[in-house]
Amino acid sequence: MSAVPDHAAIEARDAADPLRHMRDRFVLPQGVIYLDGNSLGAAPKSAFAELDKAAREEWADGLIRSWNRAGWFELAEQLGDSVGRLIGAAAGETVVCDTTSVNIYKALHAALWLRPERSVIVAEGGSFPTDIYMAEGVAATRPGVTIRLEGVDAPAIEDLIDEQVAVVLVNHVNYKSGELCDMAALTRKAHEAGAVIIWDLCHSAGALPVDLDGANADFAVGCTYKYLNGGPGAPAFIYAAKRHHEHIRQPLTGWWGHAKPFAFEQGYQAGSGIRRFLCGTQPILSLRALKGALDVWDDVDMTLLRQKSIALTDLFIELVEARCSEYGVTLVGPREGARRGSQVSFAHQNAYEIMQALIDRGVIGDFRAPNVMRFGFTPLYVGYRDVWDAVAILHDILKTGSWKQERFAVRAAVT
Amino acid sequence: MSAVPDHAAIEARDAADPLRHMRDRFVLPQGVIYLDGNSLGAAPKSAFAELDKAAREEWADGLIRSWNRAGWFELAEQLGDSVGRLIGAAAGETVVCDTTSVNIYKALHAALWLRPERSVIVAEGGSFPTDIYMAEGVAATRPGVTIRLEGVDAPAIEDLIDEQVAVVLVNHVNYKSGELCDMAALTRKAHEAGAVIIWDLCHSAGALPVDLDGANADFAVGCTYKYLNGGPGAPAFIYAAKRHHEHIRQPLTGWWGHAKPFAFEQGYQAGSGIRRFLCGTQPILSLRALKGALDVWDDVDMTLLRQKSIALTDLFIELVEARCSEYGVTLVGPREGARRGSQVSFAHQNAYEIMQALIDRGVIGDFRAPNVMRFGFTPLYVGYRDVWDAVAILHDILKTGSWKQERFAVRAAVT
Repeated sequence: MSAVPDHAAIEARDAADPLRHMRDRFVLPQGVIYLDGNSLGAAPKSAFAELDKAAREEWADGLIRSWNRAGWFELAEQLGDSVGRLIGAAAGETVVCDTTSVNIYKALHAALWLRPERSVIVAEGGSFPTDIYMAEGVAATRPGVTIRLEGVDAPAIEDLIDEQVAVVLVNHVNYKSGELCDMAALTRKAHEAGAVIIWDLCHSAGALPVDLDGANADFAVGCTYKYLNGGPGAPAFIYAAKRHHEHIRQPLTGWWGHAKPFAFEQGYQAGSGIRRFLCGTQPILSLRALKGALDVWDDVDMTLLRQKSIALTDLFIELVEARCSEYGVTLVGPREGARRGSQVSFAHQNAYEIMQALIDRGVIGDFRAPNVMRFGFTPLYVGYRDVWDAVAILHDILKTGSWKQERFAVRAAVT
Repeated sequence: MSAVPDHAAIEARDAADPLRHMRDRFVLPQGVIYLDGNSLGAAPKSAFAELDKAAREEWADGLIRSWNRAGWFELAEQLGDSVGRLIGAAAGETVVCDTTSVNIYKALHAALWLRPERSVIVAEGGSFPTDIYMAEGVAATRPGVTIRLEGVDAPAIEDLIDEQVAVVLVNHVNYKSGELCDMAALTRKAHEAGAVIIWDLCHSAGALPVDLDGANADFAVGCTYKYLNGGPGAPAFIYAAKRHHEHIRQPLTGWWGHAKPFAFEQGYQAGSGIRRFLCGTQPILSLRALKGALDVWDDVDMTLLRQKSIALTDLFIELVEARCSEYGVTLVGPREGARRGSQVSFAHQNAYEIMQALIDRGVIGDFRAPNVMRFGFTPLYVGYRDVWDAVAILHDILKTGSWKQERFAVRAAVT
């Protein structure tokens, strides 16, 4: 193992970082090292410009006319294509709408209708829970549909995939451990068994190169407020491979997905392509902030992004282990960069209090029950010096035991 | 019939209008008479203040901390109560989330689970179509569920309600004709047959006093971007009477509706009360604009609002009929103010071209296929002089035949 880099080496890395200039595209508060972009991305300046224009010009001045003149009707598909370019989707395969949970619901139904002779949904026990909850919701209205959970019904997800399985719902990057799943391999495994696969990209879209078309994926969903920096609760996205478009059927058949929404016909007739996943009128102001945020990506090389992501997370692990191991901090999730998303988690029995102390000192990560400190590294605005400084503060908190102060022990609803 | 009021009488009405000052709370473009607040409400100044604060302070500076510090988690319920005060709901009976279409879906499933021995959904053939489309979506996954349509299966909705009917889905105000349905009477009729009723309040919330609790309604849904002025595509609302809260079951069981969303449990456990209708993370920027818009209502007397609404729409009908009848313009919908929402529709065989000519002259209403010109009168910012001037322009367009110009004949996707 090489020697831990010193301060001068860190400065040199920042100076040589080809993505360094991207930081200027964001508003970052003074005195904060933000390692929680995997929960809520920082605000791109371009998001404000879009938001102001949409609210003050298009809404206030254009009023109803802006649905046509300002292109509000096309936003869901336009932004879908912008997201699509970052996840390996061809134009017309992705649409931005609703929430990740609602989109999981649509994709699960669509998958079950593609495999009418099958009735099993496979999901991960360690998934972000909404995936499992939505599967429960789908099963509740479709007689005979059952759920198999990895970690409950079998240790490995591969062992659950057989000829009874209609659909496999799986996370590309685990929300808690940061572990990256092999998309091409698991997609192949699902297809070999005749099943359809849905990829949840919440923790990989914008964090690393994703190649849905290349992996021959069927469906995908994800959120836009983490690494895509679309703003709090920004609408989610849903993807379907082009080969499925003619066969997409899902029960949220609202007027926005109709073939002729303004003919006001009495019966539902599905629109073409990915529009079949649209349902109701979307929140334009939030969509426009997202539009500004997605514009940032026009100038990003995803290969450089991935290189920097691995370098940042490798450095964080290296520094924490070198300086903080003696205080009972242990790595959760993969040590090998290639098997990791853009986040790192460490366990400690007092993870909650330590995270509170970190936040108090301006290092913002988050806590995940029962004992995990989770740190996200958005390559667009996190630098090597941030990693260095964050570990120095963590080390100080652990060494001095300042996290033992009573004020850090009150558990809030969320951190 | 009394003489048509003259210009001086109109000026006097505006001067005496107790809601006249409310107009200053909105941004209204110069040279526009806006009679389309029933499609997209005008922008309240307070919406911008909230939007700026949410984006520039809470998101950019507060980052993830704002979920707790800025109360983002409570917004859906807080805004629900703000809407609830305008629709006769007690605190805790309404929540703001998702879209009207998605909320119809949830309410229909909840109603069907309340009446498991029944299988018929009754809806209106002349409904805004998304209500029917969502009923189709529900029926598609629940074996045995069928739909009866008023106007198709029987002329009157009352004739469709019998002991097989689980749920009646009905609009309080018809989107096209403006006809107001008697909520108390139809609710009673549904209950007498043992059915549950869902009220779609899209065209009545904020347009007139609504009394869901007083009418003993079961569920209601509606949008917030029309008379509530929440901004383009602002999230919708859903209401459930308190007596149903313990029994609410719906399939969009996302993590926001979980009893303990941050325990990240593997199995879904529904939260309490109206929170059972929550599903995924909501678009905070759009919600905050809505918050600003709803603040306006603290100073509004709904009785005065209704009086002014009827006065405006009565005046519009009176003036149009006095000046424009000879050009083939005929009233659609009720003549009696008490049976009307806050909108008036007139039919003409060239309704599309005439509406285009009106918009060109700054009078913004909208067209609904095949031959309807629809005009909305939001009492908060439309005055009597606006009505007078709009009719003068309509009269001029009809008299001169200026609508016959070729440029008005190109049909856009929407007007």
